[in-house]
Amino acid sequence: MRLDQATMAIIGLGLMGGSLAAALRAHENGAVGPASIIGVARRASSIEKALTRGWIDRGTSDPIEAVQQAEVVVLATPVRTAIALLRELGPHLRPGCIVTDLCSTKAEIVQVMADLPPSVCPIGGHPMCGKEMAGLEAAEAGLFQGKVYVLTPLERTPRDAITFMQQMVGAIGARALILDPARHDRLVAAVSHLPYLLAASLVNTAEAVGASDALVWELAASGFRDTSRLAASETQMMRDILMTNRESVRQMINLFRDQLAQFEECLSVDDEAGLSGMMLQASQRRRGMFQ
Amino acid sequence: MRLDQATMAIIGLGLMGGSLAAALRAHENGAVGPASIIGVARRASSIEKALTRGWIDRGTSDPIEAVQQAEVVVLATPVRTAIALLRELGPHLRPGCIVTDLCSTKAEIVQVMADLPPSVCPIGGHPMCGKEMAGLEAAEAGLFQGKVYVLTPLERTPRDAITFMQQMVGAIGARALILDPARHDRLVAAVSHLPYLLAASLVNTAEAVGASDALVWELAASGFRDTSRLAASETQMMRDILMTNRESVRQMINLFRDQLAQFEECLSVDDEAGLSGMMLQASQRRRGMFQ
Repeated sequence: MRLDQATMAIIGLGLMGGSLAAALRAHENGAVGPASIIGVARRASSIEKALTRGWIDRGTSDPIEAVQQAEVVVLATPVRTAIALLRELGPHLRPGCIVTDLCSTKAEIVQVMADLPPSVCPIGGHPMCGKEMAGLEAAEAGLFQGKVYVLTPLERTPRDAITFMQQMVGAIGARALILDPARHDRLVAAVSHLPYLLAASLVNTAEAVGASDALVWELAASGFRDTSRLAASETQMMRDILMTNRESVRQMINLFRDQLAQFEECLSVDDEAGLSGMMLQASQRRRGMFQ
Repeated sequence: MRLDQATMAIIGLGLMGGSLAAALRAHENGAVGPASIIGVARRASSIEKALTRGWIDRGTSDPIEAVQQAEVVVLATPVRTAIALLRELGPHLRPGCIVTDLCSTKAEIVQVMADLPPSVCPIGGHPMCGKEMAGLEAAEAGLFQGKVYVLTPLERTPRDAITFMQQMVGAIGARALILDPARHDRLVAAVSHLPYLLAASLVNTAEAVGASDALVWELAASGFRDTSRLAASETQMMRDILMTNRESVRQMINLFRDQLAQFEECLSVDDEAGLSGMMLQASQRRRGMFQ
């Protein structure tokens, strides 16, 4: 299948689904986009906005109607909604249709994809980007630019479907990285889901301090702002992520707890050399990143 | 004493000392600055840069020589260096001279200030701003704009010295907030020193994961970037901060550990309602901040 001949249904016009439609329509560096994009959203206002911006060609609130016309189906909802949709939409998918998603955990959703009718081509996907703002208003064509886009093919995924997805990933300016779902989930638990829990626990710690001294909020500056940013993430999406990646997330909490305990131990026994060693390791690694 | 008639010695021309000199020389909204600024730095290159930019009038590597000519002395070094300098410089300070600092912990330094000769006027200070980049190159006149600047007067601090510092804080665009040193240290442990330890422990956790799967660094995106930013902080400065605020920092680690443990408990017993409650508390609080 060729991207420029395909009709694509994007189910969910929030930050991720909206940004995908926008990016495919931006034709950066002459990249091709789908022949047609059908947007699916519950709210008529989201469909209207996406139509007005030229990001979609048609809109509907009915995912079944949309997938019946689509050669590519992209699930852009919280992960457990996507899992429920896969079960519901399975019988209505067109033969040969590529079914993918934009969700942040992959093992559970890929397991459900394995049960789709044999005539369709499922493949998991996860673009490594986002914002703490949710909704179509926060969507932007440049969201995927230069970012890693993980693809998790199933054993049954045909070579052609993988190639198609690699082309689509390239068209929105991202870099495709093929990964095993379990490995993906473990790694994002470390670099994404754990950071969310640290941010949320930090805010709740400040809340506990603020209960007896409200001045704590006056003193929160840029360090607190950045470290706590993820606490503002959309809670339904994050809850689905945590609930579908509990084992890896708990492993990472344990690894983190050990690291924090080592800092605490150094402070309690006055081990300045030990403290320095851990601080230097962290600063050297972090300074080498994001440059 | 009037700010526009004062000779000020700034000891340390790094991010904070350099930015203070720059801000005082920017005369934002017609604000007055000191009559003269003497910059003290070990490196001749820092003095030359600050002179070239017009941030200081004179430079020296000898803090004693500088304070002998100054009516206002600002210590802009890591906190334990500032404590050592206070002990060394005490006998050389001019009668009536205001002695302040820019350090992130206040109890220990204010205790040392209390032992300064009775003829001088000590007052602690901590502007609530910073960057993870250190050094004069990172300095900028706008660093203090709109930020809280904590002042911690001693019992012996004359009213005039407090008024003088409030004027100086206003001249660089910041808001003065008078606080007890112990209360300051407890609050910044929550909103600044704990976030640093979380960031550093997060990076060290990813390092531990990366030891067996280096792909973890490929998947680190904007969420990891922001949550871990403080791990790149200047280590000497941060180590001094942690070592002079150990008790409050350990208290905050304990409070944090409890919050994280509550998340983990919900994940381990599948308590989705409990999970949602904590996530919502964090997201509502965080969304109301920094707007």
